[in-house]
Order: sequence, then C-alpha cells, then structure tokens
Amino acid sequence: MEQLRVDLGERSYDIKVGYDILSKVGEYLKELNLGSKVLIITNELVDSLYGREVEQAVEEAGFEVNIAKIGDGEKYKSLDTARELYDQAVEANLDRSSTIVALGGGVVGDIAGFIASTYMRGVNFVQIPTTVLSQVDSSVGGKVAVNHPQGKNLIGAFYQPKLVVADIKVLKTLEERQLKAGLAEVIKYGVIWDEEFFNFLANNRNKILGLDTNTMEYLLKRCCEIKAEVVARDERELGLRAILNYGHTIGHALEAVTDYQRFVHGEGVAIGMVAAAKLANKIGILNGTDVEKQEELIKEFGLPVSFEGLNIESIMKALAKDKKVKDGMVRFILAEEIGQVVIKSDLPHNIIREVLEELRG
Amino acid sequence: MEQLRVDLGERSYDIKVGYDILSKVGEYLKELNLGSKVLIITNELVDSLYGREVEQAVEEAGFEVNIAKIGDGEKYKSLDTARELYDQAVEANLDRSSTIVALGGGVVGDIAGFIASTYMRGVNFVQIPTTVLSQVDSSVGGKVAVNHPQGKNLIGAFYQPKLVVADIKVLKTLEERQLKAGLAEVIKYGVIWDEEFFNFLANNRNKILGLDTNTMEYLLKRCCEIKAEVVARDERELGLRAILNYGHTIGHALEAVTDYQRFVHGEGVAIGMVAAAKLANKIGILNGTDVEKQEELIKEFGLPVSFEGLNIESIMKALAKDKKVKDGMVRFILAEEIGQVVIKSDLPHNIIREVLEELRG
Ligand SMILES: NC(=O)c1ccc[n+]([C@@H]2O[C@H](COP(=O)([O-])OP(=O)(O)OC[C@H]3O[C@@H](n4cnc5c(N)ncnc54)[C@H](O)[C@@H]3O)[C@@H](O)[C@H]2O)c1
Ligand SMILES: NC(=O)c1ccc[n+]([C@@H]2O[C@H](COP(=O)([O-])OP(=O)(O)OC[C@H]3O[C@@H](n4cnc5c(N)ncnc54)[C@H](O)[C@@H]3O)[C@@H](O)[C@H]2O)c1
Repeated sequence: MEQLRVDLGERSYDIKVGYDILSKVGEYLKELNLGSKVLIITNELVDSLYGREVEQAVEEAGFEVNIAKIGDGEKYKSLDTARELYDQAVEANLDRSSTIVALGGGVVGDIAGFIASTYMRGVNFVQIPTTVLSQVDSSVGGKVAVNHPQGKNLIGAFYQPKLVVADIKVLKTLEERQLKAGLAEVIKYGVIWDEEFFNFLANNRNKILGLDTNTMEYLLKRCCEIKAEVVARDERELGLRAILNYGHTIGHALEAVTDYQRFVHGEGVAIGMVAAAKLANKIGILNGTDVEKQEELIKEFGLPVSFEGLNIESIMKALAKDKKVKDGMVRFILAEEIGQVVIKSDLPHNIIREVLEELRG
Repeated sequence: MEQLRVDLGERSYDIKVGYDILSKVGEYLKELNLGSKVLIITNELVDSLYGREVEQAVEEAGFEVNIAKIGDGEKYKSLDTARELYDQAVEANLDRSSTIVALGGGVVGDIAGFIASTYMRGVNFVQIPTTVLSQVDSSVGGKVAVNHPQGKNLIGAFYQPKLVVADIKVLKTLEERQLKAGLAEVIKYGVIWDEEFFNFLANNRNKILGLDTNTMEYLLKRCCEIKAEVVARDERELGLRAILNYGHTIGHALEAVTDYQRFVHGEGVAIGMVAAAKLANKIGILNGTDVEKQEELIKEFGLPVSFEGLNIESIMKALAKDKKVKDGMVRFILAEEIGQVVIKSDLPHNIIREVLEELRG
C-alpha cells in the first residue's frame, strides 16, 4: 500500500493506493475520528460488486451504515438526484459529524461530494473511487458538482475529502472502454507536468492495460501526486490549476454537442488533447514531433483521436458556453513541449475552426 | 456612512452602513474589480420598492444587469426556487467573474448566497440586506442556505460576500412586525456579548423603533461588529460561533412545529431567548434578575415571550431533529450573565419540558 498526503493546510488529507484494500476502509475511517453515522452513496452496479465488502468493513469498525443508490450514468449527476440524496441523508438522520462515503466512479464521487459539501453546510466526505478516471483525477482535488441541462458541472463547490482510498483490484471489473477512457487523464498528466512519466506510459502500455499491480500502484500514485501538487498550489482554480483542463476545453464541447451520449469523458479529453496539440502547433509554440508523440500514445491506448460527422459551428457555440470562458474569451491549455503547458485565451476563432475541421477527418 | 471590515484573511470584506446609500451601490461594485455581468436576485415587493434604484446605479457604473425575482416568503427558500435561479443565471450568461447581488431580506440573501456559492463552484456575491434581521445578522458571516422539507437551512454552505451594503432608509417601508422581529436578533447580541449594548437598547427603545438615523447607524454597526468578531474567530462554526444561535434552538423548533406559518424567525428567537434564560436559571447558572431583564426588554420591543396551544412533545421531537444535534445531544446556548454565554449539550429533557410548559402559559 502506498500513501500520499495532499497538503492543503487544515484541509489536508491522505490518499491510500493499494491492491485489495476495501476491507480496510473501516479501520481507515476509524482513524479519522468521525461521528457514528455513515451514508455510502453508490450505484446499483458498483454496489452489487463492492457494496457488501465496504458496508461490512465500515460496520465492523463500529459505524451505523446506510446505503443510497443512484442511477448509473452521467445523466444522474443532476439536481434531481441530489434532491433524492438529500432526502436519504435526512432519513439516515445524518448530523454534522456524520460521513458521506462515495463508492463508485466520477459520477458518484462528484454528486456525493456535492451532497457532502452542502448537507448541513458540509459533513465529512470520503472517496472510494472505483474507476481509473476517478482514482487519478476526480477523487483528488475537491471539485464536486452536478450538471445543469445547460452545462456540465455548472452547479458545484470546492470541497475536500477527509480521505481517498484507491483500490487497484476493483479496476479488474471495469469495462475496457472505461479503463481506456481513464487512461486519457493519465496521459494528460504526462503532457502537462512530467515528460518522464509520459515516456513511462509509452514504455509500459501492456502492463498498464493488463493492470499489473506494481505498475498501476506507481501510475496511480504518480498521477495523484501531480494532481495534488497542482491543487495544493491553487486550490480554487484561480490560475495554475486550470492546466488540469488540458484537452478538456474541446473535450467538453464534444461531449455537450453529442448530448453526453456518444463519448465517455476520457474519450472527449483524448480528442481534445489531440486538438490542443494541433492548436499549439498551429500557433507555433509546439513542434510537430511532440504533436505526433501525443497522438501516437493516445492511439496506442485505444483512444479516439478524431470524430466524425459533427457540426463545427455547434462545437464553436458549445465552446462559447464553456464555464472556463471569461468575459467572452475561451481559454485553452496548450503545450509548449511535453511536460510543460501554458494558458492561452486569445486564440483566433478561425484557427480553432481549422483544427476542428482537421479532426473531423 | 460607517464602514466595517470583516477580517477573514483572503475572504475579508467590508460592510457599509448608512442612510440613503442604495444609489452608490454601482460605485461600490466598481471598486471591487468584478466581471461585467451582474444578476440581482430579489423578490417582487422589494423589487418594486428598490429594484429600479439599484438597477440604475449598477447599470450606470457600467455593468450588464439582469434581475431574477423569487416568491416572497420562507417557503420560497427552497431547492425548487434554487433550480429556477440556476436557470436564470444560465440565461443571463453569468461566467465565473460575474456577480450575484442579493437585494432583500434574509430569505433572498440566503438563497442568493447559496446560488452564488454553487453556480460554477462560486461566483462573486454582494449583499444588500433590506430588513433589520438581514442587516444585523444574515448578511454577515457567510452562512447561505435553502430549506429542506425536513429542516430549515439543511442545504447550504459557508460562503462570504465581497461586500455588504446596509441602507437604513429602506427600513422605513418594513412592516412593524418585521422590524420588531429583527430587533430580537439585536437583543441577542447584547445578551451573548455586550452588556453595555444591552443597556443601550433598553435606554433607546423609542429612537430605535422610530428608526432615528444616528441611533440606527450605531446599532447596526455594533451588531455587525459583534457578529463579525465572532465569525472571524470561528468561520465554520466549529465552536464559538455557535453562540450566535442563542435563542435559536427552541426558536427553530417553534417555527418547525408551526410549519413556519405562525412565527416569523425573530419571534421564534424572542421566545427562544426567554426559554434559554429560564433554562439557564433552572440549572443554576443565571440569576433571576437577568432572566427578568431579558424578558422585559423583549416585551418592550413588542416581541412575544410565550406561545399558546402547541404540543410539547412535538416541540421536543423537533428539537431532536435540529442540525445542532451532535450524536443525539441537543445543544443549547445559555447565558451566565448578560454579555456572557456558554454552550451546553447535556441538559436533562425534563428541564427542557418544564420550561416549555411554563412558556405555554
Ligand atoms: N471532480 C473532478 O475533478 C472531476 C474530474 C474529472 C472528471 N469528473 C467527472 O467524473 C465523471 C466521469 O467519471 P467516470 O469516468 O468514473 O464515470 P462513471 O462514474 O460514470 O463510471 C463509469 C462506469 O463504470 C462503472 N463502474 C464504476 N466502477 C466500476 C468497477 N470497479 N467495475 C465495473 N464498473 C464500474 C460505473 O457504474 C459506470 O457505468 C464525469 O461526471 C466527470 O465530470 C470530475
Ligand atoms: N444566513 C444567516 O446567517 C441567517 C441568520 C438569521 C436568519 N437567516 C434567515 O433569514 C430569513 C429571515 O430573514 P428576514 O427576517 O429578513 O425575512 P424575509 O427575507 O422574508 O423578509 C421579511 C419580509 O419583509 C419584506 N421586505 C424586505 N425588505 C423590505 C423593505 N425594505 N421594505 C418592506 N418590506 C421588505 C420581504 O419581502 C418579506 O415579506 C430566514 O430564512 C432565516 O433562516 C439567515
């Protein structure tokens, strides 16, 4: 088991990464000195796979446990679901010292975190992420949210968990498509922060896709380290933290124009990273080799590098609605080299269009 | 015009107290260096009285202004109203640099603040409180919330405004009942923090009820100072801040069992303070004279000191659901003398019942 501290002053917390550690969650919670009540928020599928193990572990540690299940999929990360969860929190008689545990992927983690951040103005929150994406990204950093019909994550907060427990074993039941989608965010960390890690990914493709324990322990820990470092320097996304959105600007737009039906999040990000690389190259800050290296690695992990048949103008419109827009300017994260990015908010619209046309193939 | 700084590190902000200062709100906003868009959240009544003046002031300062109106009354401080407000924020095209201005009493302030705290994970928030209660209490300190059918303020956050503007002139249109209800919170500050201020209230009853400008300027500023000091010492209500809930434990329960129909908030607090005084006396920490002084002052301001015909057991049940309950224990704020309170969470239920019986008369 590896352990990592996210350093945020009085909001600091640990991330535990290991193989087959769900059964220890009860002990971990006990160490945190929390109130007696725990509400586990999960979904039907994850509950059927891992719910009993976690429930038992937490009960055996002496907590009173309730379970709330939400629907499976992005569309349940909504204000409607939030309302149901508030009702269940009330029914479970949670008080201010109680704890909400998110057991699932990013959807469960984001909405459970939003409930934890707002129920009684904030109760304890613990993340047990069960997808690659949630283990390397959404569970670390304190962004919690639900979607609004007009925009992803439009309603949310910054709210730090008290603990994150990432179990490699649970990734074995993940659908291949989800596994790969999560790896898009992993690649992202290489591009924005760490060339060596980028190369490590390129050199260990098979071990990674095969979920080799040691390789994954290193990979997950390194991603969390990078994210934790960025978040520690800029908890509320006033500046630096925006680099974590590498690939996300166009990625989000692609998800939005396809009504979140066609791409899973990581696939949007994968295409978005290719777009960002091409944009950077077109404005002359990134060389062609580094564009190819990114496209290559993304392909190697079985992720999409283009899209078909979407209307470019709808994508441009979706971009203009992005919440990263500040007074009308869309903000892009662009690489200068692998391991080093900058924030740009003055890209000519025609260059963005050009790149989108290329990606449409 | 008087000005006061609430000291919360990077979340510090000013409170401006003065007569006829709504027309200056535009300038004040400009000094804060905010984005170009402003959404004013208010209600029909307050909008008709003061909406144009504020709108014009803000527009003249160069902002793009939209107005969102909610229903008038506690029942509109709900998740349903929040949903409508999110829609209007989207329609107004607010971005992260935009500002939500609350123009109204505590209901408007609380829900507008909740929207500001969660829209895009937090946009700028400015309070223009227009009731006594909101000027001395709800607009200062960063508590924002909406109600859940099972509990007042059950869904919320801690979120500080960038500025509070309290105009004494607007209090002239306030219904007498609302004016008096606000004074309950004013009396509270005397009891929990400042005997001299308590005496000032006793000695200036007529000037206060007549809204004499100088008297009110002092009164409002002193209340905000006390609240600001308490909040600065304990922003997230981990300890000290709880003393602001003096009178609120039983007050909230009375509001809850009467479905928020019979008492306005300050009336609940008024009775709650009398209850707290009697409780303190019964457990031997407060002398009889100080109980009488409180009851006397509360009466003098035309506030209720008892209730009729409510079921004691329902009140006890409502108390047990209070969010100030920690692992089953109801928490009370009790005075040891006027100007000095302590927090108690181990009061025998039979003493609470006894006091409730007395108050039922
Ligand atoms: N908060 C953040 O900082 C942040 C960052 C990135 C993404 N996100 C959010 O994360 C969400 C996407 O998360 P995700 O990719 O984990 O999607 P997800 O939560 O929808 O999970 C993907 C699928 O895998 C299933 N699943 C989860 N764990 C499993 C397991 N161990 N075995 C088998 N199946 C399992 C889920 O039921 C679901 O069907 C999006 O809503 C996105 O906005 C948030
Ligand atoms: N956030 C906090 O820290 C905090 C503290 C105390 C109370 N509160 C909340 O505040 C709310 C009560 O606030 P309130 O007492 O201001 O009630 P309110 O907002 O309902 O206002 C009372 C009435 O006065 C009207 N009104 C407002 N300004 C007016 C004016 N200038 N002239 C004429 N009419 C006017 C309103 O339309 C309303 O009908 C409750 O929801 C309570 O939970 C919050």
